[in-house]
Amino acid sequence: MPSARRGKEQAIRTYKLCLLGFGNVNRALVSLLQQKDEWLRDRGIGWNICGVASRRLGWVANPEGCDPAKLQDLNPENSGGSGELADDLQDWLRRSRPDVVFEATSLDPDTGQPAIDYIRAALHAGAHAITANKGPVVHAYRELQALAEVQKRFFRFEATVMDGVPIFSLFRESLAAVELKSLRGILNSTTNVVLSGMEEGLSFEDALAQAQKIGVAETDASHDIDGWDAAVKVAALVNVLMGIRLRIEEVQREGIRGLTGEKVRAALNRGCRYKLVCRAGRDGNSVTASVRPEILPISDPLAGVSGTSSIVSFETDIFPGLTITEFNPGVQATAYGMLSDLIGIADREKSSSALATEQEQ
Amino acid sequence: MPSARRGKEQAIRTYKLCLLGFGNVNRALVSLLQQKDEWLRDRGIGWNICGVASRRLGWVANPEGCDPAKLQDLNPENSGGSGELADDLQDWLRRSRPDVVFEATSLDPDTGQPAIDYIRAALHAGAHAITANKGPVVHAYRELQALAEVQKRFFRFEATVMDGVPIFSLFRESLAAVELKSLRGILNSTTNVVLSGMEEGLSFEDALAQAQKIGVAETDASHDIDGWDAAVKVAALVNVLMGIRLRIEEVQREGIRGLTGEKVRAALNRGCRYKLVCRAGRDGNSVTASVRPEILPISDPLAGVSGTSSIVSFETDIFPGLTITEFNPGVQATAYGMLSDLIGIADREKSSSALATEQEQ
Repeated sequence: MPSARRGKEQAIRTYKLCLLGFGNVNRALVSLLQQKDEWLRDRGIGWNICGVASRRLGWVANPEGCDPAKLQDLNPENSGGSGELADDLQDWLRRSRPDVVFEATSLDPDTGQPAIDYIRAALHAGAHAITANKGPVVHAYRELQALAEVQKRFFRFEATVMDGVPIFSLFRESLAAVELKSLRGILNSTTNVVLSGMEEGLSFEDALAQAQKIGVAETDASHDIDGWDAAVKVAALVNVLMGIRLRIEEVQREGIRGLTGEKVRAALNRGCRYKLVCRAGRDGNSVTASVRPEILPISDPLAGVSGTSSIVSFETDIFPGLTITEFNPGVQATAYGMLSDLIGIADREKSSSALATEQEQ
Repeated sequence: MPSARRGKEQAIRTYKLCLLGFGNVNRALVSLLQQKDEWLRDRGIGWNICGVASRRLGWVANPEGCDPAKLQDLNPENSGGSGELADDLQDWLRRSRPDVVFEATSLDPDTGQPAIDYIRAALHAGAHAITANKGPVVHAYRELQALAEVQKRFFRFEATVMDGVPIFSLFRESLAAVELKSLRGILNSTTNVVLSGMEEGLSFEDALAQAQKIGVAETDASHDIDGWDAAVKVAALVNVLMGIRLRIEEVQREGIRGLTGEKVRAALNRGCRYKLVCRAGRDGNSVTASVRPEILPISDPLAGVSGTSSIVSFETDIFPGLTITEFNPGVQATAYGMLSDLIGIADREKSSSALATEQEQ
């Protein structure tokens, strides 16, 4: 969307950003910040990366701001060159004094740790916390949300489901008064790519090997294949959008390991498609949720979603069916989810201070 | 989305609302306000309808607030019973002193009038202006947006395209930094219902008559059939989401009058579907837009959208394909678009004043 402010003079607030975890997602975020820098400044948002931390690099803190061009080449040997090496999380937060912490460490579906501790510490230190990690949303959404409110900061997590497609902000900003009754979707790429491969003639094993070869599936793909990733996403959506606490174990879960290429192709010959379908339906204050392979008629919108694309369909009191489909996203889409969280926070703070100024006059 | 505030004590700001036009949409809005009253109060939003105006009723003003239960039965004979009868628009605004005017008069695609004058007057009177009318967006978006900024009020129009599906707020709130390259969609119900009827065996004339019988098509359906409604929607999307001024005459436009039942069914037999497709693509600062019947393969997501459902697919720099589909909406969906605009405005004002209070302390 074009900036309406282009050309107008306005104050720029510079946000001190810290990156926790420095894999694909936070690296893509740095590129995206650079790419969108002019747009952000037009909107009154400046940024400075004041800390980067990962298991490999240690806790690099630089309150003056690191050179983003050099960040992508950061490695354990030169990490001190971008700033001081802090002792630990607390020391890192103290030295870098972030306004916003971007948490993108890897997921532990069982506990959500250590990401929960990281986010808790960031909020306690007075920073907004933005995560791409589903663990904290599933295991500690209410606690972290409550802590953020007490701290007058924001806890945001747009990048956790369907990459950066604005699901959470859509319901928060635009569908706030809508009551979500049920949802249905395809939320895991790996299984969807494997199923597409099986439709094209491969066995389960060969389709999985191919997905690993093109970098969609991890070496240990059991997390995806057995439906854990999809179950975590369903639980995240239910916890946030329905406001009902749902633990991962409560999601009925069956992966695609039991399917064969023959079975998948036989369905296709009958005009149907196997998909790993996520479902959740509320009944008063309780919810039933599942992840399992289902045979869908080809006319079902879910059946048309192949490969790394994803889809979610919402049934609400106002809209009988509202469906969002994302085609072939890249890692940039996930990074965008985090960036859009930052923009949303900055907008809130800006409109607040604008009115505060106005009321003081 | 459940209210996180339920159970907490908080101040309620009561908004004085005025309804301009009192047909299906604003009537549905009154019902929706009643239905969502508790939710709105939990969010700190109270409301009072202080004015209702239509060609039939005249300019009814009641600064104390009308009884919403009696509003649905309002007619020219009893309209004075709900308040005073003002002389004209200016007098009505003066007497009712609205915080928000909901403009839902009928569309004049050629000029956007008198809705533009209504919205201008509302903003000048210090009210926020929310419209369900595409005319002002197409003919006066920049002027009204600029006027709203000067007046420190909001001009909102979520209900104008795809009923209340949050397209405009999605781009404003969540996809702000995304650059929209092109869009493609099915945005007119009447033609889509007629095409579905022709696929089922009817002639163009019979399919149209059936659409009129079920209340989807108007008695004079030429506005829809000849692609004007779709062209206005494309122009609205381009003006707002691409920030490029596009007049309706610049949309290449061809309706479905040239299609026969035979043609439509022959396509279906070849595994294809005729759809009235809206397109817009930007090239630098210019844009090419069209509305015309196209033959789509059945695998195209647009081909799967039948009857009164609608779809729009966006190509952006971040998301290669982001598609939103709305299935079988009712008039409640349109009313929700207006309600969500009110909620968005109230939220902005609330977060502003909360921080203002905080900073005064």
